[in-house]
Amino acid sequence: MSEKKRVKLEDVAKEAGVSKTTASRVLNHRGYLSKETIDKVHIAMEKLNYHPNSIARQLYKQETNFVGLIFPTVNNPFFGQLTAELEKNLYKKGYKVLLGDSENDPAKEEFYLQQLLEHQVDGLIVGAHNQGLPEYHHPNLPIVSIDRTVNKDVPIVSSDNYQGGIMATQRLIDLGCQHIIHTNGPTSLASPTQNRRLAYEHTVKANHMDPIVYYTKFSSSIQDKMLLFQRLFKEHPEVDGIFASNDIDASLIIKIAHQFNKKVPKDLKVIGYDGADSTRLLFPQLTTIRQPINEIARVAVNTLEARIKNQPTSKSLTIPVTFYKGTTA
Amino acid sequence: MSEKKRVKLEDVAKEAGVSKTTASRVLNHRGYLSKETIDKVHIAMEKLNYHPNSIARQLYKQETNFVGLIFPTVNNPFFGQLTAELEKNLYKKGYKVLLGDSENDPAKEEFYLQQLLEHQVDGLIVGAHNQGLPEYHHPNLPIVSIDRTVNKDVPIVSSDNYQGGIMATQRLIDLGCQHIIHTNGPTSLASPTQNRRLAYEHTVKANHMDPIVYYTKFSSSIQDKMLLFQRLFKEHPEVDGIFASNDIDASLIIKIAHQFNKKVPKDLKVIGYDGADSTRLLFPQLTTIRQPINEIARVAVNTLEARIKNQPTSKSLTIPVTFYKGTTA
Repeated sequence: MSEKKRVKLEDVAKEAGVSKTTASRVLNHRGYLSKETIDKVHIAMEKLNYHPNSIARQLYKQETNFVGLIFPTVNNPFFGQLTAELEKNLYKKGYKVLLGDSENDPAKEEFYLQQLLEHQVDGLIVGAHNQGLPEYHHPNLPIVSIDRTVNKDVPIVSSDNYQGGIMATQRLIDLGCQHIIHTNGPTSLASPTQNRRLAYEHTVKANHMDPIVYYTKFSSSIQDKMLLFQRLFKEHPEVDGIFASNDIDASLIIKIAHQFNKKVPKDLKVIGYDGADSTRLLFPQLTTIRQPINEIARVAVNTLEARIKNQPTSKSLTIPVTFYKGTTA
Repeated sequence: MSEKKRVKLEDVAKEAGVSKTTASRVLNHRGYLSKETIDKVHIAMEKLNYHPNSIARQLYKQETNFVGLIFPTVNNPFFGQLTAELEKNLYKKGYKVLLGDSENDPAKEEFYLQQLLEHQVDGLIVGAHNQGLPEYHHPNLPIVSIDRTVNKDVPIVSSDNYQGGIMATQRLIDLGCQHIIHTNGPTSLASPTQNRRLAYEHTVKANHMDPIVYYTKFSSSIQDKMLLFQRLFKEHPEVDGIFASNDIDASLIIKIAHQFNKKVPKDLKVIGYDGADSTRLLFPQLTTIRQPINEIARVAVNTLEARIKNQPTSKSLTIPVTFYKGTTA
């Protein structure tokens, strides 16, 4: 690695007898160039054992005005609204949106990431699982993450998950619940959404209760989740309050509760998380912690634009949540 | 127009002293070309008053592997699921998806359409309003429409709207409803979804009732729709059955019905249309006509691929719907 890094683009340009700009244009296949120039640069690259470094190339690249969005799926109230708002904000700034639903397909995520490294997109906004994709370890790539820890160089935009976790748990306690359970995604998913769980654990402990958490898997289907929640009611028939880490899970829990003859909110109080537009239209009864989805999208796009323009950005942007009172808690 | 059409690309090539392939490459900015060649072709074009015709260019174009999706918004259970499924199917075939939410913005729709004409995308799948955009009148463009009449050359994929309209209306009649009202989008929107209304009108008339239809506008906000549905209940307090042309409207109607002290399904039976995954998760009680969304997406992508490859396609593809029984009717 260190040997490769020592050879710079200007060395190649010098060896080829062309300007640095011309060498960069050859590397990035930009503009009209004679075959002679292209050959000279390629011969120089080979002679010096020069491997174009994506970061170096980036400094000379032309913009494509494409931005890739990598999220699990738009077939979901939260990600649907988030994607719609990201698209609106990106379009206003002159970017075109490449949509990359990635759920359960790391290969697809890697494909879009490769496009970034090859400069076919100017930047990425990501919120998919991204365990172990080596491409993310390039520093300074124009990437912004929503609710996912990618690496220390990628800014994260998220709602105030900890505040939301406290709001939800405290509400259940205030309503008199004594057996409060939390459901969340896998801890293996490096995500600030686990702060919802930490806030829950902190709040129930401070009220002398034991935290009990049920975890869904990343690959859980609706059926898998229903089985998990059935197990929850079998193992904890005393449960009288549930804080679910998203509204879809809260809806499933309410459905299963009916099977166990628990009336909501009389016997069981349920609070979700997200509060997306279509959820509030279709299920206005659901009490939930409402994420500022439109604001998250706006901040993420502004941050990405700053990254693309090599301007400094915050490493972490946390936006307050609000309590939405329905009738389920 | 007729004068322009008489000059062909081969005339330009002959005048410039280059091959037809080279002339086409100059037109489409493809490959490495000497400045001399480019100038010769441009001079010949000017001399002959040649205006590149998009259809002619298409015959020589290189594929970009981009497909544009133009729908009102992904922030909606139906369009969210449809977009997710279109993306899945397109990705499998090697296409990348350009997302173009167009709601209330004909300029945006036109922007994406221009990209097609300029060969920055290989094809479009559209389902937005598209009144009066002249670009759609080019024949033989690789466009597939979902639920919208674009022009006689663009294949339409849709659910069997007429069958769905009969199913819904007949169900309300079978349950004993005597004052059945239908809500739908604007008739100005050229769309086979108006067949839901035609089927409703046919069915109520056959049962000796008068059809009553309330129309939302294309630009109606949620607030506007709620005012419209309040007017419906004020003007027709006798209403005991409503067939809404989509599930979001059905949800709003149920919400307003509570304000008018109408219990669903006791006093009022409501049936929606769409039956998207997240609607059935969040509001499983809603009785609805379920569109085969995944199948619509699969058929649309296959049809678009055939158009891109200049293979013959059906002009209209209609896919059966199913009845989903909730508790609202």
